[in-house]
Amino acid sequence: MELSELKIIDLKESILADNDADAEKLRKELADEKTVYINVMSSPGSGKTSTILRIVEQLKLSHKVGVLEADIDGDVDTKTMLSEGIPSIQLHTGGMCHLDADMSRQALREIGSQGLDIVILENVGNLVCPAEFDTGANINLVILSVPEGDDKPLKYPLMFSKADVVVVNKIDAMEAFDFNTERFKENVAKCTNAPVFFVSAATGEGIVKLGEWLHEQADALLA
Amino acid sequence: MELSELKIIDLKESILADNDADAEKLRKELADEKTVYINVMSSPGSGKTSTILRIVEQLKLSHKVGVLEADIDGDVDTKTMLSEGIPSIQLHTGGMCHLDADMSRQALREIGSQGLDIVILENVGNLVCPAEFDTGANINLVILSVPEGDDKPLKYPLMFSKADVVVVNKIDAMEAFDFNTERFKENVAKCTNAPVFFVSAATGEGIVKLGEWLHEQADALLA
Repeated sequence: MELSELKIIDLKESILADNDADAEKLRKELADEKTVYINVMSSPGSGKTSTILRIVEQLKLSHKVGVLEADIDGDVDTKTMLSEGIPSIQLHTGGMCHLDADMSRQALREIGSQGLDIVILENVGNLVCPAEFDTGANINLVILSVPEGDDKPLKYPLMFSKADVVVVNKIDAMEAFDFNTERFKENVAKCTNAPVFFVSAATGEGIVKLGEWLHEQADALLA
Repeated sequence: MELSELKIIDLKESILADNDADAEKLRKELADEKTVYINVMSSPGSGKTSTILRIVEQLKLSHKVGVLEADIDGDVDTKTMLSEGIPSIQLHTGGMCHLDADMSRQALREIGSQGLDIVILENVGNLVCPAEFDTGANINLVILSVPEGDDKPLKYPLMFSKADVVVVNKIDAMEAFDFNTERFKENVAKCTNAPVFFVSAATGEGIVKLGEWLHEQADALLA
């Protein structure tokens, strides 16, 4: 599928009471169509878009990849993706602070997930609510950026407990901030056993390792 | 009132259907007891706590000030406030991503607002949900930090439209990031006419001006 023009989808709030069951159903549907679904969550401004760009650069060498950009409003991120030649659509959540499984399904249908190997969702920037709703993703990737501080897993434990992989972004700015990587890893370990990768989407440092890990996970899911 | 020991309050979800009316009622109650209530909102890690510390340093010279620290979990910020001799209590929202007027009222009662001139609420770190609920505050102060990027008002317009004052923090890190102050001010102007202050809670730059503005606003409200 080629998406070269800006497409904005207004997601409808889902009426399903049991989102967890619907998320399991979506995961089965995606397994049947051989699509891996990655849900990227973080605060606003942690560098979700630029990290996804870096990851896609790597993954697209071997896989067909598309990106769903969820926002309350705006379309800047989708324009960025499209300008890099990455199939992408803009999702507007109608003010909602998160996506659930049915909203995911609407978006996956629009981007044509059956023709893609990997779909990456850039969730709404928010360390609270998106953690409460299973999107049906195979991999929850949580980004924290260095300027936000190493204490954040203590304040947003649910988000970190839902992470399958934790990415610390903006390590190029490490010197300007009081961020202790060992303390951060200890704080993460209180919530999850997920691996922690340290990257800079700005310089590309650490991205290869993260991409390789995602590649392995995707291949295992697609096998 | 002296608060030297850590006190954690579990806020109860309110049952009121009409939060807006309740917020107006709370504002009247606070006006009667001559207390100004300031609601500080931002993403996680934008520097709410350190900015509040700087502001209180200044305001406490002329006013009795207390701080309410709202978090999903944890108590690090309240410990920071108490260690600086600032009356403060920790609020746990029970997983909720925001505070409403009735939750504010519970917290104000616990900190003893009638004995204070100014109470500052550090809301849950979140650029989405807290904007949807009037806390009954007199002043909504929205912080954005330089590393988050100058495009955030485009993505979180409701939050910026609710701001009575916008504070850009971490200007000491300006050189490490692609943050255009003019573009940011243009983006803010699409949402609100609120003044924009540029500060560094780390170095103290710009804090005096912000403190003076808040001082003036408080005095006008207390008059």
